[in-house]
Amino acid sequence: MQLAQGPRVRFSPFYRKSEAAGMQTATIFNRMVLPVATEDPKADYEALTQRVALWDVGCERQVQVQGPDALKLCQYLSARDLSQLKIGVAKYVPLCDHKGRLINDPIALRVDDDTIWFSIADSDVLLWIRAISGERGDNVDVTEPDVSPLAVQGPSATDTVADVFGDWVRELKFFHFRRITHQDIPVVVCRSGWSKQGGFELFLEDGSKGEQLWDLVWTAGEPHGIRVGAPNNAERIENFLLSWGADTDEESDPFEAAIGKYVDLGVEHDFIGKQALLEKRALGPTRELKGLLIEGEPLEPNSEPTGLRNPNGTHAGQTRVMNHSPRFQQNLGLAIVEVPHNLPGTKLQVETSEGWRQATVADLPFDL
Amino acid sequence: MQLAQGPRVRFSPFYRKSEAAGMQTATIFNRMVLPVATEDPKADYEALTQRVALWDVGCERQVQVQGPDALKLCQYLSARDLSQLKIGVAKYVPLCDHKGRLINDPIALRVDDDTIWFSIADSDVLLWIRAISGERGDNVDVTEPDVSPLAVQGPSATDTVADVFGDWVRELKFFHFRRITHQDIPVVVCRSGWSKQGGFELFLEDGSKGEQLWDLVWTAGEPHGIRVGAPNNAERIENFLLSWGADTDEESDPFEAAIGKYVDLGVEHDFIGKQALLEKRALGPTRELKGLLIEGEPLEPNSEPTGLRNPNGTHAGQTRVMNHSPRFQQNLGLAIVEVPHNLPGTKLQVETSEGWRQATVADLPFDL
Repeated sequence: MQLAQGPRVRFSPFYRKSEAAGMQTATIFNRMVLPVATEDPKADYEALTQRVALWDVGCERQVQVQGPDALKLCQYLSARDLSQLKIGVAKYVPLCDHKGRLINDPIALRVDDDTIWFSIADSDVLLWIRAISGERGDNVDVTEPDVSPLAVQGPSATDTVADVFGDWVRELKFFHFRRITHQDIPVVVCRSGWSKQGGFELFLEDGSKGEQLWDLVWTAGEPHGIRVGAPNNAERIENFLLSWGADTDEESDPFEAAIGKYVDLGVEHDFIGKQALLEKRALGPTRELKGLLIEGEPLEPNSEPTGLRNPNGTHAGQTRVMNHSPRFQQNLGLAIVEVPHNLPGTKLQVETSEGWRQATVADLPFDL
Repeated sequence: MQLAQGPRVRFSPFYRKSEAAGMQTATIFNRMVLPVATEDPKADYEALTQRVALWDVGCERQVQVQGPDALKLCQYLSARDLSQLKIGVAKYVPLCDHKGRLINDPIALRVDDDTIWFSIADSDVLLWIRAISGERGDNVDVTEPDVSPLAVQGPSATDTVADVFGDWVRELKFFHFRRITHQDIPVVVCRSGWSKQGGFELFLEDGSKGEQLWDLVWTAGEPHGIRVGAPNNAERIENFLLSWGADTDEESDPFEAAIGKYVDLGVEHDFIGKQALLEKRALGPTRELKGLLIEGEPLEPNSEPTGLRNPNGTHAGQTRVMNHSPRFQQNLGLAIVEVPHNLPGTKLQVETSEGWRQATVADLPFDL
């Protein structure tokens, strides 16, 4: 279907540039348009993995917590201990509700002494934090500031971004960031992004300068073969970056979602959902997100979760995403697999648009 | 752009039927696909206003609050006094955050002694209520049940629905509902819907029976000229039904959004945001949602909010939606107008894709 447009759904400051550069399909993410592919997804993948790709990810909204109680509140919200969160160093943070369910997996950036951003996936963390802080009476302002990320990803991303901002960006470590003004454009330059190809997220702090920033990066990237792109499902499955809402369901917790290592259950860290997560850990998992190696001809991506069963036909879980991997020349999937079928090497069957196919369970990230 | 599909975005149980019947454009609402128009929007409007239209509005999710504290909690969540909420009678309910901002405007249905559904607009009320109840320690379960509304709207909706379920539906008053099982299909039949043409919302309680329910209604509607449709922007502007997120912005409160009459500020009703709303009411509004009569040739619907200014060029607010009204043969708009430019009859100028146009402020609903 065609994407209908209306004022309920917002556009990022980069949207027009991204469309003019060739984006042809889009989805909606945090009530904003997120362009996802050009007419040639294979070329999108190649630019990302071999050269450099420019992504309009303005839909990754920031939820800003600011005020005297900001650090204390964020520590309570986060399943990961943020007591050592430093200005200039981002952290990947599972957020859980009171029952231990994973409700978002943002990156936390402390941009100032008493200002923290959560750079969020597709759920209303703004509403959720306002509810928590309102009930607690914390002295904070919780807002969605005028901040729009633009991602530069790929092997030549560093050269491209250095050509824009200077060679200092080469020294920036992974997940480190610096808040600068460049040619009157206020931007947080962070070495991060939702691919494993290396690169930066440029958190633009003035939406009116979106096209100016886009043009600066585009011009710098041209000698490196820059191409418009978007978060790439094939690449992120090959390298396993969690997609909240795609790989997870309503009940997923961080352990099931394979990001349990970011949960700090020690006595010194109290947070929402901790009691529930302690109980879950004590009981052990009943299901787990695992990789699948799926046999047969290259698969088309699925538009809905599908079935997962044992060779004898009994239920074994749910296949969340599947895709053909250009790198491994192999169909890969991610599935919520019920214990005990989650052991690597287990043979299962996956429901595809062309019927059931044989598959083998694998650990994440894939080691092929 | 084309709408991209993937497992992060869900389909309703009616989606395939709705697509097969001719829906060609769609948006995303509560992380579900919402079909919005066929190739002939004029015929969509005519079927709704002259015959009967069938809408896949499965994306209007229910947030179910169930348990011993359900009523007490819902009363605290709702700006409208729900102490008299009876089984079988729905109420339209503004939900506000602790600062009095309107965060959703659901219909509340008490379906059982200790079970309330909020039938929501496009924001994560589920997360928000879980946060509130988790902090308060209420004894409730807050879930998204398997409930998918199918709307039957238009002058022949009653005849159609009576042909499906029986003549008792003719006696059902506006916003009254009954929970039944019909041909093994569990469904809540409610006289409601997001149009002023009359009709019903059928809250299907078993997603696996979506196509069966669709077919029953479709067959009954054929003698009445039933057509696939969707919430209709032209019709709902003519009759002013609020569209949360389209007509409102991040800061809108219920008074500004022209639904202040549903807020109960009396001493007997305590709720989230009450203190902030009392202060806002005491200060008086600084801006208001108003109608606009826009001059000139028929307008295309806008995809983004646009400017609103005084004839002398100074800022007067923001135009949220505009559309040509088939009924009034007149361009209509809804705008957040700053005081004192909000008085009916005030002459303003509206930014359109073809430049600025003259407009006149009008009260809502329009009285033409």
